[in-house]
Amino acid sequence: EILALVEGLLAAGPLRGVKALVTSGPTFEPIDPVRFIGNRSSGKQGHAIASALARLGAEVTLVTGPVRLTDPAGVTTVHVETAREMLGACLGRLPVDVAVCAAAVADWTVSNASKEKRKKEAGAPPPAIELAPNPDILATLSESGGARPHLVVGFAAETERVLEHAGAKLERKGCDWIVANDVSPATGTFGGDFNTVHLITRAGTEPWPRASKADVAERLAWRIVDALGGHKGEQE
Amino acid sequence: EILALVEGLLAAGPLRGVKALVTSGPTFEPIDPVRFIGNRSSGKQGHAIASALARLGAEVTLVTGPVRLTDPAGVTTVHVETAREMLGACLGRLPVDVAVCAAAVADWTVSNASKEKRKKEAGAPPPAIELAPNPDILATLSESGGARPHLVVGFAAETERVLEHAGAKLERKGCDWIVANDVSPATGTFGGDFNTVHLITRAGTEPWPRASKADVAERLAWRIVDALGGHKGEQE
Repeated sequence: EILALVEGLLAAGPLRGVKALVTSGPTFEPIDPVRFIGNRSSGKQGHAIASALARLGAEVTLVTGPVRLTDPAGVTTVHVETAREMLGACLGRLPVDVAVCAAAVADWTVSNASKEKRKKEAGAPPPAIELAPNPDILATLSESGGARPHLVVGFAAETERVLEHAGAKLERKGCDWIVANDVSPATGTFGGDFNTVHLITRAGTEPWPRASKADVAERLAWRIVDALGGHKGEQE
Repeated sequence: EILALVEGLLAAGPLRGVKALVTSGPTFEPIDPVRFIGNRSSGKQGHAIASALARLGAEVTLVTGPVRLTDPAGVTTVHVETAREMLGACLGRLPVDVAVCAAAVADWTVSNASKEKRKKEAGAPPPAIELAPNPDILATLSESGGARPHLVVGFAAETERVLEHAGAKLERKGCDWIVANDVSPATGTFGGDFNTVHLITRAGTEPWPRASKADVAERLAWRIVDALGGHKGEQE
């Protein structure tokens, strides 16, 4: 009888009626029509989270930068390039119950981007690339007032002093949880299929064992089930 | 009988005994362990040229930057990231009979690249990205003295005044041919499956009709057969 009950709950999906927003992948910030500043995020972790939430019954929108992955089944996927486009796509999706910001959003955009390809001129110095801060998607979602998701989860991809940087990020951004991972090249996390993370909440820091990105996504999705608990989808 | 003769020639391959070097894709120039400057080259044209040369019997080495393509059948593929790595891989392959430089090699590298991820500091100005010229692979191969390939073909990816820029490039680099294409975003050339090119030789400029990148590669490969003509592989 208990088994039947559990199966019934799973069939309905513990996240049925919950709206989720997930960001994934890198952003590309144009320097000119052919060059850009990018980063090594593969989108594998973010896409796996979108899939896991959808399997648990959530209505998921995935906003992704340029990745080599196919769009996950059962998820509404929106493709963007720049941080500014990603922010716009996210804000357009509010209100949601939970937002998981797994994208590696560029901190800076190129403020002097050129409409034509920059030419290398013999004897001339290299062009200057001027950077300006990008909008902060995680902080913006965390501060979105009446439309703030019930739960806002950020990611911190660090190469040194991972927990210290991630803990500071939780405070600075005003989000609820941070999933902190070490993306030093030696770990193979960026682009790889495995991840070793810490979950940092207001209650403390939990080290999670090394696991596939799919398994990290499953575990995180079930933690989101717990956290939303009584909080039902806004539409219900 | 003529048909049998042609078939026999094709079976042997008109480029049998010819060593070819092809570069393809973008290069990525690191800013720090996670960020890089890249470009929108998909590698489709370069990979198609490597395949076409191999099908005509050449012994082909493909040196490619980061692309989403599978390694072409019948081709020795070498994977690199930066322009400097690409140059090293090319020089290590000399002598060859023909070099086709289809890669979109970064003109500049980041001279102040950081070993740790650059942090966004509250209130601090964005970091400065300092550029320095990369080695020029096409010019280096064109000037490689006794080891110079019999035929050196470059590509010019321009967004404006395409023929003017490409003609100047032929002179400046000292190569034999330039395949000039317009990669303005509106053309869809970068990442797309079609290409509209001009072949610029010392004899003049030929407009080629819009065609698939596979067909442009075939046509170029047959032009290379013509150009090498009597020139046989160095090893024979």
